[in-house]
Amino acid sequence: MQIAIVGLGKMGGNMVKRLLGGGHQVVAYDRDPAAVERAASAGAVGAVSLADTVTKLSATPGPRTVWVMVPSGKATDDSIAELFDLLKAKDIVIDGGNSNYKDSIRHSEELAKKEIRFLDAGTSGGIWGLEVGYCLMLGGDKSAFDHVLPALTTLAPKDGLGYFGKAGAGHYAKMVHNGIEYAMMQSYAEGFELLKATDYDYDLAKLADVWNRGSVVRSWLLELAGRAFKNDPGLTHLKGYVEDSGEGRWTVNEGVARAVPVPTIAAALFARFTSRQENSFAMRVIAALRNEFGGHAVKKA
Amino acid sequence: MQIAIVGLGKMGGNMVKRLLGGGHQVVAYDRDPAAVERAASAGAVGAVSLADTVTKLSATPGPRTVWVMVPSGKATDDSIAELFDLLKAKDIVIDGGNSNYKDSIRHSEELAKKEIRFLDAGTSGGIWGLEVGYCLMLGGDKSAFDHVLPALTTLAPKDGLGYFGKAGAGHYAKMVHNGIEYAMMQSYAEGFELLKATDYDYDLAKLADVWNRGSVVRSWLLELAGRAFKNDPGLTHLKGYVEDSGEGRWTVNEGVARAVPVPTIAAALFARFTSRQENSFAMRVIAALRNEFGGHAVKKA
Amino acid sequence: MQIAIVGLGKMGGNMVKRLLGGGHQVVAYDRDPAAVERAASAGAVGAVSLADTVTKLSATPGPRTVWVMVPSGKATDDSIAELFDLLKAKDIVIDGGNSNYKDSIRHSEELAKKEIRFLDAGTSGGIWGLEVGYCLMLGGDKSAFDHVLPALTTLAPKDGLGYFGKAGAGHYAKMVHNGIEYAMMQSYAEGFELLKATDYDYDLAKLADVWNRGSVVRSWLLELAGRAFKNDPGLTHLKGYVEDSGEGRWTVNEGVARAVPVPTIAAALFARFTSRQENSFAMRVIAALRNEFGGHAVKKA
Amino acid sequence: MQIAIVGLGKMGGNMVKRLLGGGHQVVAYDRDPAAVERAASAGAVGAVSLADTVTKLSATPGPRTVWVMVPSGKATDDSIAELFDLLKAKDIVIDGGNSNYKDSIRHSEELAKKEIRFLDAGTSGGIWGLEVGYCLMLGGDKSAFDHVLPALTTLAPKDGLGYFGKAGAGHYAKMVHNGIEYAMMQSYAEGFELLKATDYDYDLAKLADVWNRGSVVRSWLLELAGRAFKNDPGLTHLKGYVEDSGEGRWTVNEGVARAVPVPTIAAALFARFTSRQENSFAMRVIAALRNEFGGHAVKKA
Repeated sequence: MQIAIVGLGKMGGNMVKRLLGGGHQVVAYDRDPAAVERAASAGAVGAVSLADTVTKLSATPGPRTVWVMVPSGKATDDSIAELFDLLKAKDIVIDGGNSNYKDSIRHSEELAKKEIRFLDAGTSGGIWGLEVGYCLMLGGDKSAFDHVLPALTTLAPKDGLGYFGKAGAGHYAKMVHNGIEYAMMQSYAEGFELLKATDYDYDLAKLADVWNRGSVVRSWLLELAGRAFKNDPGLTHLKGYVEDSGEGRWTVNEGVARAVPVPTIAAALFARFTSRQENSFAMRVIAALRNEFGGHAVKKA
Repeated sequence: MQIAIVGLGKMGGNMVKRLLGGGHQVVAYDRDPAAVERAASAGAVGAVSLADTVTKLSATPGPRTVWVMVPSGKATDDSIAELFDLLKAKDIVIDGGNSNYKDSIRHSEELAKKEIRFLDAGTSGGIWGLEVGYCLMLGGDKSAFDHVLPALTTLAPKDGLGYFGKAGAGHYAKMVHNGIEYAMMQSYAEGFELLKATDYDYDLAKLADVWNRGSVVRSWLLELAGRAFKNDPGLTHLKGYVEDSGEGRWTVNEGVARAVPVPTIAAALFARFTSRQENSFAMRVIAALRNEFGGHAVKKA
Repeated sequence: MQIAIVGLGKMGGNMVKRLLGGGHQVVAYDRDPAAVERAASAGAVGAVSLADTVTKLSATPGPRTVWVMVPSGKATDDSIAELFDLLKAKDIVIDGGNSNYKDSIRHSEELAKKEIRFLDAGTSGGIWGLEVGYCLMLGGDKSAFDHVLPALTTLAPKDGLGYFGKAGAGHYAKMVHNGIEYAMMQSYAEGFELLKATDYDYDLAKLADVWNRGSVVRSWLLELAGRAFKNDPGLTHLKGYVEDSGEGRWTVNEGVARAVPVPTIAAALFARFTSRQENSFAMRVIAALRNEFGGHAVKKA
Repeated sequence: MQIAIVGLGKMGGNMVKRLLGGGHQVVAYDRDPAAVERAASAGAVGAVSLADTVTKLSATPGPRTVWVMVPSGKATDDSIAELFDLLKAKDIVIDGGNSNYKDSIRHSEELAKKEIRFLDAGTSGGIWGLEVGYCLMLGGDKSAFDHVLPALTTLAPKDGLGYFGKAGAGHYAKMVHNGIEYAMMQSYAEGFELLKATDYDYDLAKLADVWNRGSVVRSWLLELAGRAFKNDPGLTHLKGYVEDSGEGRWTVNEGVARAVPVPTIAAALFARFTSRQENSFAMRVIAALRNEFGGHAVKKA
């Protein structure tokens, strides 16, 4: 089928390749002409603007499909607002980025004013998606889902996609997925630190590999841990500094809003916050209190 | 090779079968004659006591190997103490149960007084081990490991076993494995509860299956979650009551002892504790305090 | 000075009495005429509407002061919107309820369009405030603070009030105060449950009293705990079911938004959520997983 | 009454003074002769050894009382073992240090072999105890408690002491007290960091003082926070590095052992652990995993 990909970064760029490999016609657009050039070299039809993207899709009859793969928030808002003007009834907008599901509900309602159909596609797989396929969790207009299924089937691994309900269902599932991901990574990390804290001198790469054969904790993340330990057994080249990109925060906020206890997801998020602090004010307060009541020694900043 | 299995429960019984399937000669013993009978029917040599077990191993020259697979604590202590009397220098005792690694260090030292060699074998795989193989993390005497490698290779999946260091290294790794397991399960559980708390009416079995194709959180536990949701989509037949079996507690204690922060593992353990409380005293204290300072309503027991 | 109190519930009703006791003239209004009647009996000027409230304040020259003490959210929004129409430049609106600080910033901006001055007053003290005084944290217009200082001084205990900055500073401080309160209550609650879990048969009322004399954990909450244990030593009449009223949630959300780790406040909030669950879905997921991989027994719902 | 104090550090030294001020006869001993000298200058009878201590107590008829105030663990074990040899039936040993309650149960049993009576005295108050008095939680022999009540009454603030049950009850209560203390300090610390994270420029010393007048979170620790912020408003001179001294760890271990959820106490303990880590291995694992699956940037150590 014909589909446009808007946003040709790490994710979008590889999706173009995977779609082309599946025999689809892809119109590719990015604000960066070099990214468009790369996609064109791979076989896509390059576009110079969103308007141009839509024009190039119009060569083929039937509803037009635009997959937006840009940063969540303003960039996605702006792209969808512009597509609202460019598209017409029955056309399809898919937001494959990491948008907050509330934004997706809003986008769906806005586009519905012109009967433009909307899908929110939670997308997981990272840089491995090109090879393995992208796990896709869809929400939104069911008829649109049915229409774009050929492209989705190419993008995803076998059985790695599903339609989960009305608008927002896809991005909500992706948000929860990432919350789980945060807590799983923290789970492994605590375990590996415990192993490292002994005098057993564990070969962590080997242990990760062994665990991945038949143990209860086997997983893809554990495979990646094995790879990381093979490259740098003590992770000595790394700083224990971890960013977070929004979905973990949203997951905790959803737990708070819905009165669902999320202690491990919150703990994982807070561990990242702490990892980025140079001199925690909270811990300074405690050091000061201990000094006040017990005369305990403090360290000077 | 020839090996005795002592303890023919869910784990030990299946290990006998897997070893027989691999062409090994197995002497099987359990306090329960019916369990011995079942093993004998499968092709093992049944024994009526530990002494009989050792005698039956003695028909073959070379060091004798006894795999102890009984509950950790007293049962394991008692078995190893009796084997100390029955075995002689160069013989091998393997503790494949969920013993605390400190017990394994002690067992190793005790057996060493007669030059009996000891291995602690952390064993993961549950009821799936018969089919998939048991993931094995070994610690203890390296020469003993080399000697029993044929049996270990049969028990484990391909590449699913490793030697990790002196006595205790196997059971310490298994303890950490289970701590990670607790936190991973809690991670998924929080996520699924968040999904359940929406009005999206997620098909959780389908979502688990989709996530298992290409997503970052794919894992064996997630496969099992998919199976569980297929059997009972709302888990309506279950009570949210969860036991814990020791290793999770030990993992938290190790974190405490070694000053390693284990917030997700501890949170997972505490969630299990809470799940078993009928009327939390702590929460009654808080209800009472809120009533005292704010006149907030309380619920009567 | 002259001041109107709008909202004569547990908090507002007692504030009227305290203000009257301090020699102030109070116009009292509530939607419930019985509450107005009670205030009038105590010496306040009763009003039948917000318009009537403002009219009755107008008998005295100088800027009019209205203290709004109604539930946060819609009730506060509506009251302030109506006061916007009724008041004029230089008049003062104080929101003494538990509003979110973001709402207070908004209210401040809205009222500023008519040069009406706004103060947000975080108010703590519960049902004890009548006797002890209300701890008051103020934010907003400094000139308004100076104007109403006589009333604030009457409401608060000696030295129990302060101006902390522009609009929102008062309610933000109150929000954090409540977050701390959640975590402190949980801290004590965990400790008392640990004491209860022994076979020492502690006299918790006595222990609370002893701790309150010279120990590091002495506090007012601990005094209240002592009172509660005196009334019902085992808290046997209570259910461990605890509501939360918003500020704890906001505090966690602020931690999330500002990347400030708040593990104890979040844990305290989640403990309340859990206390209200009949049959946790998360724990059912874990019970199901344990059954799947290990054949562990489950409890039926 | 007559009493010996063994161990004249920050706590013991001040206890001597307080006892002397209360009119008691004090025999004072410490391994450091300078400490003995200081106590003697204050009016105590100095001793040069434990044997000398006991001899000097023997000048007075009736059972001898020795208060041991040395570091928990080996130093306390050694002192009590030596006193076992020196004392006789009916004499009294009080352990006022921060011993683990299990050690106190053991000491009680050991001393009972010679009918020496034992009391474990949980002691709180820190460097303020000299002036305010020491909060005392006693366990052990009730007749011994009755005998030493005059000295306890001098040491404690009015109503600040109690007998709570058989041996260990005092130190268990002190352990829990410290666990609560950890979590309360963390509660305030999180709150103050949240306040610091805004652009409101809070005067934290003033806010602490205001909160201490009538608010729900008023406490002695909050008074100390006010003092600390007065000395150094931004705590700029401090490093957020916090030691822990054992009782917090024991409290978490007790929660684990008794299946009592202690999420805030554990979180407070883990925050201290984290505060002392230069480059967390756990967070390096997470940074490595994010790089592996998503190509996310890492920081170099």
